[in-house]
Amino acid sequence: MAHETAVVSNGAATLRSRLYQQLDPEARSSGLSTLNKFIISAIVFSVAAAILSTEPTLTRGYEAYWTALDAIILVLFIIEYVARIWICVENPRWAPGPKGRLRYATAWPALIDLAVLLPMLLFAVGSEAYLLRLARLMRILQLARLGRLSNSITVIITALQQRSMELLLSLGVAVLVVIFSSTCLYMLEADLQPEAFGSIPRALWWSVITLTTVGYGDIYPHTPLGKAFAAMTAVSGVALVAMPAGILAAAFSDVLAEQRRRKDKNDH
Amino acid sequence: MAHETAVVSNGAATLRSRLYQQLDPEARSSGLSTLNKFIISAIVFSVAAAILSTEPTLTRGYEAYWTALDAIILVLFIIEYVARIWICVENPRWAPGPKGRLRYATAWPALIDLAVLLPMLLFAVGSEAYLLRLARLMRILQLARLGRLSNSITVIITALQQRSMELLLSLGVAVLVVIFSSTCLYMLEADLQPEAFGSIPRALWWSVITLTTVGYGDIYPHTPLGKAFAAMTAVSGVALVAMPAGILAAAFSDVLAEQRRRKDKNDH
Amino acid sequence: MAHETAVVSNGAATLRSRLYQQLDPEARSSGLSTLNKFIISAIVFSVAAAILSTEPTLTRGYEAYWTALDAIILVLFIIEYVARIWICVENPRWAPGPKGRLRYATAWPALIDLAVLLPMLLFAVGSEAYLLRLARLMRILQLARLGRLSNSITVIITALQQRSMELLLSLGVAVLVVIFSSTCLYMLEADLQPEAFGSIPRALWWSVITLTTVGYGDIYPHTPLGKAFAAMTAVSGVALVAMPAGILAAAFSDVLAEQRRRKDKNDH
Amino acid sequence: MAHETAVVSNGAATLRSRLYQQLDPEARSSGLSTLNKFIISAIVFSVAAAILSTEPTLTRGYEAYWTALDAIILVLFIIEYVARIWICVENPRWAPGPKGRLRYATAWPALIDLAVLLPMLLFAVGSEAYLLRLARLMRILQLARLGRLSNSITVIITALQQRSMELLLSLGVAVLVVIFSSTCLYMLEADLQPEAFGSIPRALWWSVITLTTVGYGDIYPHTPLGKAFAAMTAVSGVALVAMPAGILAAAFSDVLAEQRRRKDKNDH
Repeated sequence: MAHETAVVSNGAATLRSRLYQQLDPEARSSGLSTLNKFIISAIVFSVAAAILSTEPTLTRGYEAYWTALDAIILVLFIIEYVARIWICVENPRWAPGPKGRLRYATAWPALIDLAVLLPMLLFAVGSEAYLLRLARLMRILQLARLGRLSNSITVIITALQQRSMELLLSLGVAVLVVIFSSTCLYMLEADLQPEAFGSIPRALWWSVITLTTVGYGDIYPHTPLGKAFAAMTAVSGVALVAMPAGILAAAFSDVLAEQRRRKDKNDH
Repeated sequence: MAHETAVVSNGAATLRSRLYQQLDPEARSSGLSTLNKFIISAIVFSVAAAILSTEPTLTRGYEAYWTALDAIILVLFIIEYVARIWICVENPRWAPGPKGRLRYATAWPALIDLAVLLPMLLFAVGSEAYLLRLARLMRILQLARLGRLSNSITVIITALQQRSMELLLSLGVAVLVVIFSSTCLYMLEADLQPEAFGSIPRALWWSVITLTTVGYGDIYPHTPLGKAFAAMTAVSGVALVAMPAGILAAAFSDVLAEQRRRKDKNDH
Repeated sequence: MAHETAVVSNGAATLRSRLYQQLDPEARSSGLSTLNKFIISAIVFSVAAAILSTEPTLTRGYEAYWTALDAIILVLFIIEYVARIWICVENPRWAPGPKGRLRYATAWPALIDLAVLLPMLLFAVGSEAYLLRLARLMRILQLARLGRLSNSITVIITALQQRSMELLLSLGVAVLVVIFSSTCLYMLEADLQPEAFGSIPRALWWSVITLTTVGYGDIYPHTPLGKAFAAMTAVSGVALVAMPAGILAAAFSDVLAEQRRRKDKNDH
Repeated sequence: MAHETAVVSNGAATLRSRLYQQLDPEARSSGLSTLNKFIISAIVFSVAAAILSTEPTLTRGYEAYWTALDAIILVLFIIEYVARIWICVENPRWAPGPKGRLRYATAWPALIDLAVLLPMLLFAVGSEAYLLRLARLMRILQLARLGRLSNSITVIITALQQRSMELLLSLGVAVLVVIFSSTCLYMLEADLQPEAFGSIPRALWWSVITLTTVGYGDIYPHTPLGKAFAAMTAVSGVALVAMPAGILAAAFSDVLAEQRRRKDKNDH
């Protein structure tokens, strides 16, 4: 009997180990397992369904189908969640035993999974339409999990981190220019267009939309002096677009040169 | 008689070889033959005619001239098509004989030519105006053939290929930002502007137009909170314009430096 | 008695020296003292209050609270101003004694402080609402003091200075394009849209908003020829955005490479 | 008598030589003479006057003053033109004697001067207002002379020339994208918005304004499929802005690195 249990437990351990190889991206040095490729497809499908479910012309009359789809997606991700809790002790990063499981379950990747699953479990069956819709939208959070699965994002992250100080400073300069131009336009056009420039917080909307060169055109100055200041703001906007582009270009060059230097060293 | 045929066939072979030198850009190490320059001009002229033929103020009353022009262009490109089928066996890339001709005819450059010629042959004479117009527009596909004729596009293609992973990732980040900002605006403005923000797919239009800093101004948020999120989207848009610019700058620097290094090596 | 005075004066000198360590950023080789961090927070808070105080929906009925806030901010910055005058003689940059104090008080940082404080002192109590509002807005000038406190801005400033000639030239080219396109649109659309293109100075507004790719859409050409020139202006706009981005990218690469070279030399 | 003429002629030769030093920028290795600084100011002033003279609110009732100003500017530039014709033989670039003068007068800088002066001479006095206005606008051409006077423009020109092939190719890709997106929108929205998308040439306006991310918002697609294609066009627009920025960044880095290398060689 004891022998039989050990065999069963051995079989379970082997299954857990094999599932770990398939489920945890850290178990493989590179590439993605077939199971993880399927999970990524499921996430993309689930998010696309959540987005499309907000469109009334697609859901009206088909509520039953959408609810069924929700149920399938829910069951799928519950299985994945439980499976990850089960196999996490195989990963040396988490301590073995219940303590490791607790540490895994309270780390942010598992918490995101829970934040997606809990609202669907609570509101999916028989509750109000508004809450159901909100529960569906929580699924969009799963997109954050896609980032974990890619190794190539390192170049971008390294470049952004190395130059974060310069990028923050150009953001700071942008904030100063936004405040300055809002103040100018408030002083020049507050009486003429009280709805748009009646206070500095109101003028901020125009200022940001101009400085980013979006330019909706819902608000623009009418006086010649206001137009002169707006033109200067637009020109500053070009400079403030060029600055992060320049900083990032230098940063990417740097990261790539560093990568090549390291590779050359390894080759010799 | 047999002797005469051989002479004729010899003469034909010489003509085919000379035409091959003129017609196939791969027959020359660099530059373009006079005939290919003429064909490029014919393509540009044919595409321009197709574009202008859609303008009613230019065609009304002159339908006969446009039909004549179509016929001339059609005959010209049929001659070119047949000539290329005839000479393709001179190019060692295709096997000699009928088999090589078949392989050439089913490769994509010849298929594009066919996709341009067939609709014109089928619908040009006496069919409905709509089909004729569509047949004309197929000629725009010929622009794809211009790319084959240039050698200088290599620097751009190499730079794009080497950094394709980073460029795809910044596109991926852009997709995430688009989905996130659409969801926010949908939650904040769906009741106020159901036509524009009534569902996430509808809000996507606003989101893409803002994030690319195009900013038509047909749709924009009206609530203060919606404006705050829109302003953040616009600022993210600047970052997402700066990122590919930076990646491409580093990539072009890289390709040019590589070219110079190789050239220096050859000089020594 | 004389002895007692000396002790008091000694105690005052020690206090002054310790306050100098806390108040003057030049007294420390790097980082910010607790007091300066508090002053920066006070500046940010004071500017935010000045911005929000222009919004009528936030101030109507709460005038007493805003006046009290103004008074607190005013007292705080007066104390800071007096303290800085008192301790400035500790800094070797200014000559010791009254002469050093005068030199400090007439340098631009102290003059900005005065420009912020004087209007608030003059108009804060019992004067007209318009002047009070203007006095509040002067506080926004204090943002200029934030720049002095950061050492990381050097990379950006150095890059801008080294390439200032090229950046000015691309600004010059932009001015030429703006004048040229305004003149073209004035000649083509003056009769059709006299309000927008009736003179070159009027056309400048459209020209700048198009060239910076802001594109409000309040003004655009209506004739085909006008549209053709506007399209060329828009394409030039892209080139004129790309040029400073390229110049800055090269400049930042340069500054960073120079920094690394210098660091490498120090390491050996 | 002959002796006296020689003396006079000698004096004239000396005067001519001294004027040459002042007037011709090529006579000095670097920097600008006082006279040339004055001429540049006169050109800027003359162009500014031409621009402002188109604004009716500034000229109505002051026509006499503007005519007087025109006369002064005209006389000034006639004197400059004659002086340059007189001194040009001092410059070794032009052959001495009448033949050199003819070659100078038919080179493009002198032809621009003539193109500015002739219309003002012909139409300035007593002719129609329209022609007079046109004659004034010709003065804007003088801005082209400013470029000749700067030596720092070399970095920008060299960078543009070295990468002209890549820049032209990205312009070519932009043209292909413009034609492709115009064709798509024409096929999707021609029936719905015949004024805006009724033919491909009409759709070009929308296409260029979207691809350059200007986005006036006067025209935009209304159908979901049209919006999907427009969104793709906007995203391509970002790529086509990023491409020349990247190319120019690499080119500027190249030119600056080349300059430093040459300088280092000279120092050793």
